Amino acid sequence: MATQIPFKTHPRRSIWMFGVEADEPTPAQRTEQERRLSERWATRVALPPIPRTEDLKLRAPRIKPPAALAEFCRTDNYERALHTKGDRLKEIRGEFENPPDLVAHPRTEQELEAIVEWCSDKGYAVVPYGGGSSSANGVTPPDGWDGIVTVDMDQFDRVLEIDETSRAARIQAGVYGPHLEDQLRPHGYTLRHFPQSFAGSTLGGWVATRSGGHFATNHTHIDDFVESTRMLTPSGWWESRRLPGSGAGPSPDRMVIGSEGTLGIITEAWMRIQRRPQFRATAGARFPSWEQGYEATRQIVQAKLWPANLRLLDPELAQGSAGLDGEHALLIISFESADLAQDWPIRQAVEIARANGGIVDDADILTSSGGEPTGRGGAVGTWRDAFIPRGTDAAAGIGTVGGTVETSITWERWPEFDRRVRAALHAALDEVCGGGTVNCRFTHVYTDGPAPYYTYAGRYREGLTAEDAYAVRKAGLDAFIEHGGTVTHHHAVGRLHRPWYDRQRPELFARALRAAKREVDPNWVMNPGVLLDP
Amino acid sequence: MATQIPFKTHPRRSIWMFGVEADEPTPAQRTEQERRLSERWATRVALPPIPRTEDLKLRAPRIKPPAALAEFCRTDNYERALHTKGDRLKEIRGEFENPPDLVAHPRTEQELEAIVEWCSDKGYAVVPYGGGSSSANGVTPPDGWDGIVTVDMDQFDRVLEIDETSRAARIQAGVYGPHLEDQLRPHGYTLRHFPQSFAGSTLGGWVATRSGGHFATNHTHIDDFVESTRMLTPSGWWESRRLPGSGAGPSPDRMVIGSEGTLGIITEAWMRIQRRPQFRATAGARFPSWEQGYEATRQIVQAKLWPANLRLLDPELAQGSAGLDGEHALLIISFESADLAQDWPIRQAVEIARANGGIVDDADILTSSGGEPTGRGGAVGTWRDAFIPRGTDAAAGIGTVGGTVETSITWERWPEFDRRVRAALHAALDEVCGGGTVNCRFTHVYTDGPAPYYTYAGRYREGLTAEDAYAVRKAGLDAFIEHGGTVTHHHAVGRLHRPWYDRQRPELFARALRAAKREVDPNWVMNPGVLLDP
Repeated sequence: MATQIPFKTHPRRSIWMFGVEADEPTPAQRTEQERRLSERWATRVALPPIPRTEDLKLRAPRIKPPAALAEFCRTDNYERALHTKGDRLKEIRGEFENPPDLVAHPRTEQELEAIVEWCSDKGYAVVPYGGGSSSANGVTPPDGWDGIVTVDMDQFDRVLEIDETSRAARIQAGVYGPHLEDQLRPHGYTLRHFPQSFAGSTLGGWVATRSGGHFATNHTHIDDFVESTRMLTPSGWWESRRLPGSGAGPSPDRMVIGSEGTLGIITEAWMRIQRRPQFRATAGARFPSWEQGYEATRQIVQAKLWPANLRLLDPELAQGSAGLDGEHALLIISFESADLAQDWPIRQAVEIARANGGIVDDADILTSSGGEPTGRGGAVGTWRDAFIPRGTDAAAGIGTVGGTVETSITWERWPEFDRRVRAALHAALDEVCGGGTVNCRFTHVYTDGPAPYYTYAGRYREGLTAEDAYAVRKAGLDAFIEHGGTVTHHHAVGRLHRPWYDRQRPELFARALRAAKREVDPNWVMNPGVLLDP
Repeated sequence: MATQIPFKTHPRRSIWMFGVEADEPTPAQRTEQERRLSERWATRVALPPIPRTEDLKLRAPRIKPPAALAEFCRTDNYERALHTKGDRLKEIRGEFENPPDLVAHPRTEQELEAIVEWCSDKGYAVVPYGGGSSSANGVTPPDGWDGIVTVDMDQFDRVLEIDETSRAARIQAGVYGPHLEDQLRPHGYTLRHFPQSFAGSTLGGWVATRSGGHFATNHTHIDDFVESTRMLTPSGWWESRRLPGSGAGPSPDRMVIGSEGTLGIITEAWMRIQRRPQFRATAGARFPSWEQGYEATRQIVQAKLWPANLRLLDPELAQGSAGLDGEHALLIISFESADLAQDWPIRQAVEIARANGGIVDDADILTSSGGEPTGRGGAVGTWRDAFIPRGTDAAAGIGTVGGTVETSITWERWPEFDRRVRAALHAALDEVCGGGTVNCRFTHVYTDGPAPYYTYAGRYREGLTAEDAYAVRKAGLDAFIEHGGTVTHHHAVGRLHRPWYDRQRPELFARALRAAKREVDPNWVMNPGVLLDP
């Protein structure tokens, strides 16, 4: 159905990979990738052709919106495939099994109210959609519904107000990371929240999923930057006051943050913003062992220096992504400030690293004072280049077993926890793939424990399925929950993590949250299957 | 009723003033105080005699516990008067109008379960009680109930475990501040949470009320120190995992923190602890105007130096409590660290203060490196001596109009907000007392705004009532809510702040919280009247 009135347009996003269509690999790149993978794995690798939108055979929409809503609802193949976000392995083969019936793009709060009211009245599932970057199936249409409406918030993409005195901005929820920064930059500000999905995720998604930013310590979670929120529920609007701090009852915002679309759809938020950093300092410390690395990391964070970055790479990862020797761990330390030279803090952190066996050459302590980036050279630079997602997934469509799982755990339990998680992942990789690799880095560090992030990859063999991949992931998540961690530190619960989330959360809290949801979403239409069941 | 088995004993607390009986003024001190006040106010001031417990005529207990519960329930005058915490002006005259029927002191979680179950079954109100320091009537027995049981948690007073590696401790909820620190000190640790009520309040009370600590910036609220909580509700236990961080759904702890006893009774929590500070640095900056003072304060906090103290006193307060000239504002800046000399941070903060008109002599920048306190001399020391509560309230029992109200507001709105709040308080003081004084300090400072704390006092006249005092408080709180602030930054809602809290919170959040409460407290017995009504 073609729309009759103008919409804000955005670059078309890929229906099968993270990123935009313009970044999709060419057929020639795919062929070349086939050749390289076949060589690396010493077997014949066949990449499926990239699906063409016009060829997709999608289930016909089962519901039809009233005319007033149809104006901003789409039912074409591209829109419905893009918003399916189910089994990626099947989707690159053109099988989109449970697409939404409609994709709404409300342009105003009135249109948003109308679509939510219609869905709630009719009993259609509403899937709030930011950038669709969920790695936990948080925006995958749920099974078992007769009507599914995905509400894409991409028309809500403005920074509405900047309060320079308070360093806060009123920002619409559907704005993507780069576009948000583009609107703050001319004023000299930044939200400074850069999750790895930054280019393909939105403010509303970050708030709804308790996104983790790229700061490793102190204020880094989106939770810390929220000053107030505005959310539409099926029972009406929920809006909090702008307050720097409050002790008046449990925080209303803290119930919105992490609600993952189950209570309502966030339309805007007042967010704490920051002046753009001018002063930077970076150092990389190599440690003869993983153990020395994490002990030094613990001591630096417990000294409360609050570095912007304090990422520890285990020896395997330091070798693979930063060019180290496979024996040494690498700790990347950096500080940033809009106002103050960071020589003193970086020297304090380096001293603690050295006192714990860290090797840091004085020449490798880099500082800048005019806004120039540091940390672009040496091992730190190599790591950085490997870390930033490139948006091209040339190998997509092959059945492989690989992924990441992330958690947090207190320092006291950490060494044993690490051993057990690695053992569980290796055992599963052995079972499913006949072997594989596991490595770990800390993405965030707290005074009471690290947030470890495990990356695993199974040995390739033909015919690996999504079930095989799930079996390995399950082994990691089982180990997290069994040994005291959280099922997710910053990737949210979605539908993928539900079984472990259900084991983790206090049962009475689940009951309380369920009752709260029923109050604001009486027909239980908001993102069903995520976090809770009726 | 005499108890048959031993209880942990604690110093007897005063039934009519903040503090312990041993600190109550003697009759001679009261007579002297009468003389001094009569002279100061040029009128005949009569202080009522201090009530004697044995003379009190309390309403007889209306309910009787089963034998198994009676063992840890008290009904004597002292216990029931101590736990009344209603109208203090009447109480010092011996009028305790609505005392609890029973005061339970459970010694174990089993006893706690038994008393809560009995109350829930019978429909008796349960008032969870920590130190009883609430200034918002948070532990005042509610009106309209046929049975009221105050549950004093003072038997839960141990630090149960210390995890030195993770810097966390498992601590029982009923421990008073000094006793908690006594148990951590031999190990070299501190919770470093020192609300002004520290000596007369407990960990459980701090968590339940979102207590504000004495740090002025960064992690200071008890919210930040909670790693996990354990709470008994009428529907059973609610316990969260120890996690340094998590993104799995809305935080369960954040629903407990600030619940003010309305969901259940916190029995213990894992708390983040800290090494005792060794390095200190302090400076006091004088500013020619209030405006320059708060502009400098804003810039220091926005530079993210995270000082331990960043308290700004307006000229009236700086004169009254720090000996300044009545024209200058005083900004107290201090830093502390267990690990690192704080010379660099204090110099940065002082530079910012000076750049904004602050007067700081180099000789007044004090540092120490062996754990010795700084900030004991000069204007800062004078302020400190006035700030720490002494526990003796020699003037209690006279009808006066005076008190404090505290809030938070974004920087952009702050100057106008300050003018309006002062105008409202002065107008009310003029109306009620024919005049009075208002001053302000910042207790906490955020990048996006300050937490101002107003102290007001009306001119004395004979016959001032609690209603007169309430009228002035109401004027301040009305102004807070009308002009965008919070009804309370760190004194909790209790029963006193309910009318303003009801205007402040999102109505849908109130409905959600009400539904959540009903789920865990189906008979609505937990601290009724606080936060919510059925």
